[in-house]
Amino acid sequence: MMRTLTVDLGERSYPIFIGENILGHPDYLLPYIKGQQVCVVTNETIAPLYLEQLMNSLPGFQVDVVVLPDGESFKTLTTLNQIFTALLEKRHNRTTTLIALGGGVVGDMTGFAAASYQRGVDFIQVPTTLLSQVDSSVGGKTGVNHALGKNMIGAFHQPNAVLIDTKVLSSLPRRELAAGFAEVVKYGLISDPSFFCWLEVNVERIMSCEPEALAYAVERSCQNKATVVAQDEKEGGVRAILNLGHTFGHAIETAQGYGNWLHGEAVATGMLMALDLSCREGWLPTEDLARTQALLLKASLPVRAPEDMTAETFIDLMAVDKKVLDGELRLVLVSELGKALVTKSFSMSNLRKTLAAF
Amino acid sequence: MMRTLTVDLGERSYPIFIGENILGHPDYLLPYIKGQQVCVVTNETIAPLYLEQLMNSLPGFQVDVVVLPDGESFKTLTTLNQIFTALLEKRHNRTTTLIALGGGVVGDMTGFAAASYQRGVDFIQVPTTLLSQVDSSVGGKTGVNHALGKNMIGAFHQPNAVLIDTKVLSSLPRRELAAGFAEVVKYGLISDPSFFCWLEVNVERIMSCEPEALAYAVERSCQNKATVVAQDEKEGGVRAILNLGHTFGHAIETAQGYGNWLHGEAVATGMLMALDLSCREGWLPTEDLARTQALLLKASLPVRAPEDMTAETFIDLMAVDKKVLDGELRLVLVSELGKALVTKSFSMSNLRKTLAAF
Repeated sequence: MMRTLTVDLGERSYPIFIGENILGHPDYLLPYIKGQQVCVVTNETIAPLYLEQLMNSLPGFQVDVVVLPDGESFKTLTTLNQIFTALLEKRHNRTTTLIALGGGVVGDMTGFAAASYQRGVDFIQVPTTLLSQVDSSVGGKTGVNHALGKNMIGAFHQPNAVLIDTKVLSSLPRRELAAGFAEVVKYGLISDPSFFCWLEVNVERIMSCEPEALAYAVERSCQNKATVVAQDEKEGGVRAILNLGHTFGHAIETAQGYGNWLHGEAVATGMLMALDLSCREGWLPTEDLARTQALLLKASLPVRAPEDMTAETFIDLMAVDKKVLDGELRLVLVSELGKALVTKSFSMSNLRKTLAAF
Repeated sequence: MMRTLTVDLGERSYPIFIGENILGHPDYLLPYIKGQQVCVVTNETIAPLYLEQLMNSLPGFQVDVVVLPDGESFKTLTTLNQIFTALLEKRHNRTTTLIALGGGVVGDMTGFAAASYQRGVDFIQVPTTLLSQVDSSVGGKTGVNHALGKNMIGAFHQPNAVLIDTKVLSSLPRRELAAGFAEVVKYGLISDPSFFCWLEVNVERIMSCEPEALAYAVERSCQNKATVVAQDEKEGGVRAILNLGHTFGHAIETAQGYGNWLHGEAVATGMLMALDLSCREGWLPTEDLARTQALLLKASLPVRAPEDMTAETFIDLMAVDKKVLDGELRLVLVSELGKALVTKSFSMSNLRKTLAAF
């Protein structure tokens, strides 16, 4: 069964195709490639698994391939430059189309390369992890990390299309599936309480890669994300709720070095910290915190911060977050299950209690 | 006398202020700074001359300064990263404003840093060379070079304002003044025949930095550029005429190594090559080529390509130009004085004759 969603952004609107075994299906790619040149960017892990299948659906194009090393630690300007070098060596021009075949790191870097190469060329997202399928491939956020902060360098650049083949998730390590599941749970928490309840019932089906459950979870996640992005493409306001748990989570990732904790793992713990603070502020019943923790534990996600991180380390690292405005830390908190807000109205004393508790 | 122009781009419209001694005048800066943080990016040559004056007009802000090495050879991703490092170390957030104080290299890099830092922050252009005042500071093209091609990595990112102090040109080396003059002549050639005639009469006044003549030349150049940019912000069409001489010129710059030929010098020779080809195609009287050469010679600009560059080197380097579409080289040619067009309709045999002649 093919599911099609649309990210509604006027002239920059684009489709998200979700289905099994659609990766090698040219019908979903060809209408979104305008020129004669294509550059597929992927990584060492994904290339042996799916590159050939994708290449088979690109007959008649000049197709070049860039294979990057795998991992968040390579999401840098230096690796980005490898993509530019390949494009220039193969003389790709302004009508080229970049295709990101891989997880969030490949997608974010390919998107930023597309945003910056000759000041902007087309690109298509073919996400191969649950995390990138439900989150980073949709919405046009692209970029690389800096040694001093995650995703600090980048651009908003919308893809021409997103092609999600849920079949590829069966080759995903369970730990990475769980990391993606954390972002799925996020949509329940910020905007979709009935989806949250569905997840409580179906978590085992998802974690065992049951096709219908996976496809439904991906579709509903993308639908939630697309709705938020359509309201606020460049994160002037409501889009920031998509970062629930991310300010805490980025601090964990930065402190641990990129890649030691998976992004989704850090977000899982970060969301619980945000919910804990929401409880302390008196907005959220502790019951909802407990339900969320139970749900994340069923996916074997971490629910405690790394032991060596002190409250001071957190506060220090959180101060460079992109949501800081004129020195004031803003956080995404949850006012009731399925409803999030961005606020600076929380007490530092409660924040310290939360940090101490984790 | 203060002259104000507007670049008309809807929501992204912005003013260009042109006047003598307006650099330290807070009235032209403060309305365009939204937050509390400012980062001035400049270079080793300009900092001792004008940084203090600019800083005096920024009271009450957190002002940090990044001083880059001077020269086109530093217009790289590596130098760009220095700006990001400074911004992160000083904890600049999304409401920060970057100010580019310097020539085209500083302006292009600061603009790209502003486009990419946290996926986009504000910036203001304070160009200090004739070339940057009449060309690169207006229109939102930002970026860095790649070893395999000039300006191949970048973004369209419009400034909040452009502050042009013509007084600073008196400290500019004559060679750099001439390089800027080449771009001034360009506006006459592509869209403003009466300005071309005015330049023929007034070239000595400009080259001796006579204030009224300089201010008029800058204003009229900016007006021409603003009109073209307003029609075609992202160079889907007519904007490409601003690149008259640039495809040839970039080839010279790349072959000689960035910085050995100044950009304006390469453009001067490149424009003559484009005019020569236009004559061979039968569009332009050779008289207009001769007038242009005479005008450029009065500013001591080079009118011949480097001796060690063969026709094959040119053709090879021109093939990576951003105006190449699906393998076909497009060039900006002149159909009559004051009228340019982008075309692939020229014979390779004439192109080779032009290359041989230079």
